Amino acid sequence: MKIRVIIPAVAKHFEPVALDYYSRAARSDVEISVVSLAEGPSFVGSLYQAALAAPGTVSRIAEAEREGVDAVICDCMTDPGVEAAREVVSIPVLGPAETSFHIAAMLGHRFSVVTPIDSLVPVFHHHARRTGLQRQLASVRGVNIPSSELGNEERVLQSLIHQAATAIRDDGAHVIIFGSTGMARLTASVKQGIEREGLRGVPVIDPAILSLKIAEAFVDIGLSHSKRTYPTPPEKEIAGY
Amino acid sequence: MKIRVIIPAVAKHFEPVALDYYSRAARSDVEISVVSLAEGPSFVGSLYQAALAAPGTVSRIAEAEREGVDAVICDCMTDPGVEAAREVVSIPVLGPAETSFHIAAMLGHRFSVVTPIDSLVPVFHHHARRTGLQRQLASVRGVNIPSSELGNEERVLQSLIHQAATAIRDDGAHVIIFGSTGMARLTASVKQGIEREGLRGVPVIDPAILSLKIAEAFVDIGLSHSKRTYPTPPEKEIAGY
Amino acid sequence: MKIRVIIPAVAKHFEPVALDYYSRAARSDVEISVVSLAEGPSFVGSLYQAALAAPGTVSRIAEAEREGVDAVICDCMTDPGVEAAREVVSIPVLGPAETSFHIAAMLGHRFSVVTPIDSLVPVFHHHARRTGLQRQLASVRGVNIPSSELGNEERVLQSLIHQAATAIRDDGAHVIIFGSTGMARLTASVKQGIEREGLRGVPVIDPAILSLKIAEAFVDIGLSHSKRTYPTPPEKEIAGY
Amino acid sequence: MKIRVIIPAVAKHFEPVALDYYSRAARSDVEISVVSLAEGPSFVGSLYQAALAAPGTVSRIAEAEREGVDAVICDCMTDPGVEAAREVVSIPVLGPAETSFHIAAMLGHRFSVVTPIDSLVPVFHHHARRTGLQRQLASVRGVNIPSSELGNEERVLQSLIHQAATAIRDDGAHVIIFGSTGMARLTASVKQGIEREGLRGVPVIDPAILSLKIAEAFVDIGLSHSKRTYPTPPEKEIAGY
Amino acid sequence: MKIRVIIPAVAKHFEPVALDYYSRAARSDVEISVVSLAEGPSFVGSLYQAALAAPGTVSRIAEAEREGVDAVICDCMTDPGVEAAREVVSIPVLGPAETSFHIAAMLGHRFSVVTPIDSLVPVFHHHARRTGLQRQLASVRGVNIPSSELGNEERVLQSLIHQAATAIRDDGAHVIIFGSTGMARLTASVKQGIEREGLRGVPVIDPAILSLKIAEAFVDIGLSHSKRTYPTPPEKEIAGY
Amino acid sequence: MKIRVIIPAVAKHFEPVALDYYSRAARSDVEISVVSLAEGPSFVGSLYQAALAAPGTVSRIAEAEREGVDAVICDCMTDPGVEAAREVVSIPVLGPAETSFHIAAMLGHRFSVVTPIDSLVPVFHHHARRTGLQRQLASVRGVNIPSSELGNEERVLQSLIHQAATAIRDDGAHVIIFGSTGMARLTASVKQGIEREGLRGVPVIDPAILSLKIAEAFVDIGLSHSKRTYPTPPEKEIAGY
Repeated sequence: MKIRVIIPAVAKHFEPVALDYYSRAARSDVEISVVSLAEGPSFVGSLYQAALAAPGTVSRIAEAEREGVDAVICDCMTDPGVEAAREVVSIPVLGPAETSFHIAAMLGHRFSVVTPIDSLVPVFHHHARRTGLQRQLASVRGVNIPSSELGNEERVLQSLIHQAATAIRDDGAHVIIFGSTGMARLTASVKQGIEREGLRGVPVIDPAILSLKIAEAFVDIGLSHSKRTYPTPPEKEIAGY
Repeated sequence: MKIRVIIPAVAKHFEPVALDYYSRAARSDVEISVVSLAEGPSFVGSLYQAALAAPGTVSRIAEAEREGVDAVICDCMTDPGVEAAREVVSIPVLGPAETSFHIAAMLGHRFSVVTPIDSLVPVFHHHARRTGLQRQLASVRGVNIPSSELGNEERVLQSLIHQAATAIRDDGAHVIIFGSTGMARLTASVKQGIEREGLRGVPVIDPAILSLKIAEAFVDIGLSHSKRTYPTPPEKEIAGY
Repeated sequence: MKIRVIIPAVAKHFEPVALDYYSRAARSDVEISVVSLAEGPSFVGSLYQAALAAPGTVSRIAEAEREGVDAVICDCMTDPGVEAAREVVSIPVLGPAETSFHIAAMLGHRFSVVTPIDSLVPVFHHHARRTGLQRQLASVRGVNIPSSELGNEERVLQSLIHQAATAIRDDGAHVIIFGSTGMARLTASVKQGIEREGLRGVPVIDPAILSLKIAEAFVDIGLSHSKRTYPTPPEKEIAGY
Repeated sequence: MKIRVIIPAVAKHFEPVALDYYSRAARSDVEISVVSLAEGPSFVGSLYQAALAAPGTVSRIAEAEREGVDAVICDCMTDPGVEAAREVVSIPVLGPAETSFHIAAMLGHRFSVVTPIDSLVPVFHHHARRTGLQRQLASVRGVNIPSSELGNEERVLQSLIHQAATAIRDDGAHVIIFGSTGMARLTASVKQGIEREGLRGVPVIDPAILSLKIAEAFVDIGLSHSKRTYPTPPEKEIAGY
Repeated sequence: MKIRVIIPAVAKHFEPVALDYYSRAARSDVEISVVSLAEGPSFVGSLYQAALAAPGTVSRIAEAEREGVDAVICDCMTDPGVEAAREVVSIPVLGPAETSFHIAAMLGHRFSVVTPIDSLVPVFHHHARRTGLQRQLASVRGVNIPSSELGNEERVLQSLIHQAATAIRDDGAHVIIFGSTGMARLTASVKQGIEREGLRGVPVIDPAILSLKIAEAFVDIGLSHSKRTYPTPPEKEIAGY
Repeated sequence: MKIRVIIPAVAKHFEPVALDYYSRAARSDVEISVVSLAEGPSFVGSLYQAALAAPGTVSRIAEAEREGVDAVICDCMTDPGVEAAREVVSIPVLGPAETSFHIAAMLGHRFSVVTPIDSLVPVFHHHARRTGLQRQLASVRGVNIPSSELGNEERVLQSLIHQAATAIRDDGAHVIIFGSTGMARLTASVKQGIEREGLRGVPVIDPAILSLKIAEAFVDIGLSHSKRTYPTPPEKEIAGY
């Protein structure tokens, strides 16, 4: 089985990191490939940058299908171009935000998102709306750390643990979604951190790896998105692309 | 007051048509300008084409603000780039689908969308979700006419009237939204058509002109979208744009 | 265009104040007239007083239509008689609570109401229910000031600013609705107050003036409420009125 | 226990009919009294007439409490003045529409309303909204008989049975609410009628008598509406009443 | 009228306590009988124990119908076997959680559950979901007292009062449901306690006794659950029971 | 990885059938085992039979965990004992109804269930409620074939295809869930059948195999249900089990 991870940004240097991260988690019969964009934003932390990233991402997804890839994961919590791409391909296209929202709703009464990227906070409320899961979303919490200081990983981690614990204690979250794909490696540390605070038995979802696993499951059984919801676009000549 | 209409497609020939249509409906103190895209799809009838159109549209909206325009209307029922653009400007950005959904919800218990562009049917269900108005949406009905035959305006009109009447009689619609901006001039004929069938007192919304009027209202009183929902994107260098 | 403001209370002394307030905000081609009730409560701050005010208000609205008025605004946050009146007239009848709830839902993820009239707090939850917008209502906050001390405008204003800031910071409000028409002139000061506290980009809605602008928009394009939702009442002789 | 039935209309001739109907159903320890309005509409078949009926109804309800009555039922499917009256009294005030909607939601997945008063059809959708039970309401069906011909009881009954059966078969109703208090005596015949069509085990609710029974239950255990939802109105002098 | 209370646990010693409690509240024409289970858990404080209790409870309910009982109340806030039993009998089967949730929704905008059994907290969120009343549930609050110390009734009571007051003040509860049947006798003391703190006019529901009263009401008018929602199970031989 | 399938019925003869069916779909590194109940119903086609099956099922699930199994699938569309079992084990417990509802909600706007077991129709509405996905459920359709004639597989299949096609054409379903685990082998034929009718691109979910795949995914990444939603039951001695 071939699964392609699309980094929806001009970020070639991140390809080997992602390849390593996804490959470790993939089943032995799964071949992971990673591509980034030739043009687009260098980072996606808003709906604006997601809009800029979408055309290139859709193009990469169509290319993946042409190359015989079985499923695609869009490695970004804004899910850029994900719904648009489903119209032009038949293979499953997984958005990590959408995927983790639906799976979190299976695992407990309510979930919270805890994100190291403060600018994404309102975007997760946007996802709650479009997935129809507003009632299950207990809260979205950012770390309140300027992006220039996100390099201080220990500080970021402590804040993430604090926000996750607060989401559980005060907001009534029963499940935590880690609100980033690029820093997803911190998921395990966040889980350990809240357990040290006595908060046991709370699933902490790594959206990147969860999307990989759901993609594997879908390919195994030939499941993909509905063409009634995502029909093939009407054909018209398109200028400039 | 200056209001700019963005045609989110490479469709320069449609600019004078739109200028005429919006200008007739605008208040005498409102100056309408119309621009289309330099690159992008030539037509937007799907989420895919909306994604292709979004970057150019956002760019046109930012340009409008820089040029001192007071509000922007994105002339397409897919609302391409509308939410992304709100992050980068402070002026109101009106999407005709979103606007007509919210206003229709004010006018009666339930509304239906009747569209000449069959490929847009699932897109309106997508709008219902993102606006949180699924319960108020009675139905979405297309004309079941191949796009190659949309030039037969009389046939299109008869089907639109039939679908609108069916939405009212069978689906329980109390308000009708005309599901297209490009053919919005047919709105009045649809209203007359259903009245001839005895269905009186049912508002039929022209989303293009309604958006213009709501834009005028917002500018008059200095109202715009919340920066809490649409914060300014984090600054990062962007390659290729 | 003629727009009539109905003060749904026996409050003739308030007519010139309202005339001035609405006239300043009206377009130059709009003629504002204001009437109050001949009988009814002298103040409406509850569902009870709204029920007492409704018959006189409906009567005034019917009178307005007979006199050639194009749209009516009911100048009270309980929206007394507004839905009843729509059954007996064909012109748009705007309730400021209903109008501001729907427009607030367009401007951001969630909104809060901040009101100087503490007794109205549960009434706004009632409005959330009847508009179907409960999920978008973040909170309703009163000033906790006895009505006998509402004359101390500075104290009222400081409390309103504090409550609005708390709604934004703690309740997750992205839009603020000023919960009164009679004291609506304070809206701008509330907005300035929260901006001084660093809360920028949050729309603060003046429901009175917003309703005027939406009324102007509706009249311009011939839009009114659906007769399917608000049908003409069955005719029967009515005793005692 | 004393229970007062308020007929919210100028309809003295209906008092003995109602007294007989409610008394037969009341427990032996319950004393029923019936009053109608001194002024107001002679019939309530719309939100408009409900608004006209509300002040007199609220007044009758306050009078009942002063006279030592334990609970009040407002004998009309528009629930006129019911919520307003809860602000001014402490005894339970039962509206038959509201009561039957909530109890129907307990008895099965979805319910439909079948009403002999066609003008009430949109009013029941209004009730669905204000009770928050829109999702449980399968449909509202009128008899399509002019009010002038409602005297033909057999024709009305046959239509009611047909509409109820259709609601069950086509709309997925699991419970039927009889949508009138004045003709509530037909409830049993409707139930027999649908059973003759093979539709067994479907509860058919008589809202008048159900409200009586819920009133008896509430008085027995001292339950009434919350003063947090229905606080005592702020005192102000009221002119003209 | 005969009403049977089923204690869904092996708890014969609790039968006389329950008999006394329900009999005091029952109408004079109602004969209360109480039975507990021959096998099952000795206490039900979780979904797990509810599952263990369900078969015996359903069996007791079927037995009650065979013995000519008119209605059944399952004396436990997990409502064990209640929906299953409705499939096999025609008499009303009342679950105290479900009943109090629906009635609480009639009495005010939002309700909270306050329970002495901390392990039941997530079970009440489960009930909110299955009744479709999530939006009306303001909060669920436990006493944070180990079950081994629940014998200290004064301590339990003080905590219940504190939690109820906090639910009203901080969570916006307008109605309180006492979240236990076994300790339901404390309901009145909780009500007095919050009134001493100045929180007047807030209904405090005793689910056990409320269910009795609703059962009396249903039997009086021949109302029971819909066989469309709870159809008779398909007949198949069942081994081992 | 070890995955245990629990047949929640006394149906030993079905064990090899299920073992074969699940083993064919499992990954090569997954060891499937199947157990049925020692006591309980021989067939589960209602909430009643699900209640009878739950204790034995929970017991089998606890046994599986003790034996080192990594995840459990309860092979029945009533999901008997699934939520109760999550309280007593830490491994993932998958219910095929719940799982397929959540995944269907990811694949398209709305889904329908088509079931060969007519008695399950209301049970699926029950699942819609408890999963909070009522709005996404377009319809539930049975085959209208007496259970005694379900052996006529061709007749069953033709009806399933007809019902699925009707759900897509008339009810607006974009995704189909096959409403049975025991006859799940027909899923592929249903999909082919609707494709022959021109309905392409509609996912048809086999809930049994989907649950297996989601179980594999969860075990791979250590994900299980939240102990906040499903806490360990309070310890009390339990008589009779």
